[in-house]
Amino acid sequence: MVEQMLVEKRVGEQSIVLDKRAVLLAPSTVAGPKESLGPLAGCFDRCYDDIILKEKSFERAECHMLEESCFLAMGKAGLSPEEVDYFFSGDLLNQNISASFCARKLAIPFFGIFNACSTLCESMCLGGMMIEGGFAKHILFAVSSHNCSAERQYRFPTEYGSQRPGYAQWTVTGAGAALLGSSGEGPRLESLTPGRIVDTGLIKDPYDMGSAMASAAAHTIYTHLSDLQRDPSYYDLIITGDLGGVGKKLNEDILERNGVRIAPNYADCGMLIYHPHQQVDAGASGCACSALGFFGYFYPKMLKKELHRILLVATGSLHSPTTYLQGESMPAIAHAVSLEMN
Amino acid sequence: MVEQMLVEKRVGEQSIVLDKRAVLLAPSTVAGPKESLGPLAGCFDRCYDDIILKEKSFERAECHMLEESCFLAMGKAGLSPEEVDYFFSGDLLNQNISASFCARKLAIPFFGIFNACSTLCESMCLGGMMIEGGFAKHILFAVSSHNCSAERQYRFPTEYGSQRPGYAQWTVTGAGAALLGSSGEGPRLESLTPGRIVDTGLIKDPYDMGSAMASAAAHTIYTHLSDLQRDPSYYDLIITGDLGGVGKKLNEDILERNGVRIAPNYADCGMLIYHPHQQVDAGASGCACSALGFFGYFYPKMLKKELHRILLVATGSLHSPTTYLQGESMPAIAHAVSLEMN
Repeated sequence: MVEQMLVEKRVGEQSIVLDKRAVLLAPSTVAGPKESLGPLAGCFDRCYDDIILKEKSFERAECHMLEESCFLAMGKAGLSPEEVDYFFSGDLLNQNISASFCARKLAIPFFGIFNACSTLCESMCLGGMMIEGGFAKHILFAVSSHNCSAERQYRFPTEYGSQRPGYAQWTVTGAGAALLGSSGEGPRLESLTPGRIVDTGLIKDPYDMGSAMASAAAHTIYTHLSDLQRDPSYYDLIITGDLGGVGKKLNEDILERNGVRIAPNYADCGMLIYHPHQQVDAGASGCACSALGFFGYFYPKMLKKELHRILLVATGSLHSPTTYLQGESMPAIAHAVSLEMN
Repeated sequence: MVEQMLVEKRVGEQSIVLDKRAVLLAPSTVAGPKESLGPLAGCFDRCYDDIILKEKSFERAECHMLEESCFLAMGKAGLSPEEVDYFFSGDLLNQNISASFCARKLAIPFFGIFNACSTLCESMCLGGMMIEGGFAKHILFAVSSHNCSAERQYRFPTEYGSQRPGYAQWTVTGAGAALLGSSGEGPRLESLTPGRIVDTGLIKDPYDMGSAMASAAAHTIYTHLSDLQRDPSYYDLIITGDLGGVGKKLNEDILERNGVRIAPNYADCGMLIYHPHQQVDAGASGCACSALGFFGYFYPKMLKKELHRILLVATGSLHSPTTYLQGESMPAIAHAVSLEMN
């Protein structure tokens, strides 16, 4: 019987078709000052005009936002932490500290995960399978990033005021949380394509994450469409996480060269968070980028049935400052989740 | 129907009873020089007498061991990477780089996870549910740690030769990998208790991980036994990951004060890796500690049916050098997996 189930569930090279039992519920967003001046400001649940949120450090500020997004999501869903079966969370900081310290406050059984900025979709893949398998009724998942904690960790102390190249992206200050439930009203998880690492070996500049992640996004989107024998037009929209201007164009080009034209119904959250005059160069990045973009802007459109089918593809660059200094290229990954609203 | 499945699977506060579909297969171990002089030396698949494995850096050496353990495991199981559905991996380095760079080489759909030294059991919880749910036939999981890469990242440059307090533990240099399969001969996953974060607020010294993790281990073991209404004697052995001498005693004491006596059938991998004369103070720690101990020493005893029921409880301390400097206490977690060999 298990063998038969497997045949039904797994299709093609790396995708899984679900029975649409898992519903995405109560997404909640908390945004920093720069994000609160961007075009999506009106879409967020909380907007802060203070980058450090009156905390003692940027790290505490990031954790504060993450905790707040979790409590907002549970509040919207009418659940207390005791009613949530599992908590998935990850962030960009060393040792995943925002996630771990948030989990300390929630006291829900906790799985720390890390696939950089693709962590949002990694949670949805794992949580979706757990709901479908009947192992949980409610799973909370959340991600965060903070411009100042990320910059000083990945690149230079923020006080240096280092010059940025034009292809650099701006790490989003914010957090997003949501629940996957075994019942309720909302978009349902229809299929999943967990990603493989893609590394062309060519990208070694940690400012050039868009280029590194574009190949991973293209690989996952191509595999997803091919596994499920779908045309891009099957989706009302294909949404990537944080490729930015450079990566979005490159992703379109790679897919086009492989006979897949996504440009007519394709958006990237990295291009939606800031106005052009906000001087963020190639766009937004960070774990919170796809959370603010998808939860804040696109999810409500699904609820209103303006969008029925979405393929959400969060992307992550899995380098570290150490691997950069040791001359390594940047491995990237992208996980895809297909959501349906009927 | 889903509701009915849930009622069957979830028991008590945070445990899940499985249908014993997931089999633990082909565990493989790679050990560093100090570990290869310890009492378990004869149990490991590969022993190195060179701490840097002729690589350019300690980080590359760690990744080398992790990759090797993965290929050993797949070799023993007679599988190529293309036949493995998912790869779970995590380590102690910033941005989980050993795991990510190993995943780059394997090109298996990858979930990066991080719960510090409890990552081994975190993988088994997540992978076990995926096999049970029918989402995969073969899941590879692997963890690594390296004394020199961990010391210089978490504490001081190794060249300083810093003095260590007597309650400090020695990070194991090594890696371990295994597969979870939907068929095959070996111990089966019988139940799971994914852990919550426990932080008493008292432990702030990053050398004192045993004390921080003991509370988490005690909480998870207590919850597991209470959820499943079992006495510690139900198990031939309860095995913790890396509490070391200080943490092991504390774990026994906390449980004893709560009416649970585990001492008669309790072992800690942190006490098994080194001889007393190897000067490791309170014992071994690191992601690879539970992997070398359980895969190397206890798993063969299960296969030979000398041990039938084991509760494996890997423990992790989720602090970072930044949270330590910011005066935070250390959140800890422990995930429990019950294994049965019939």
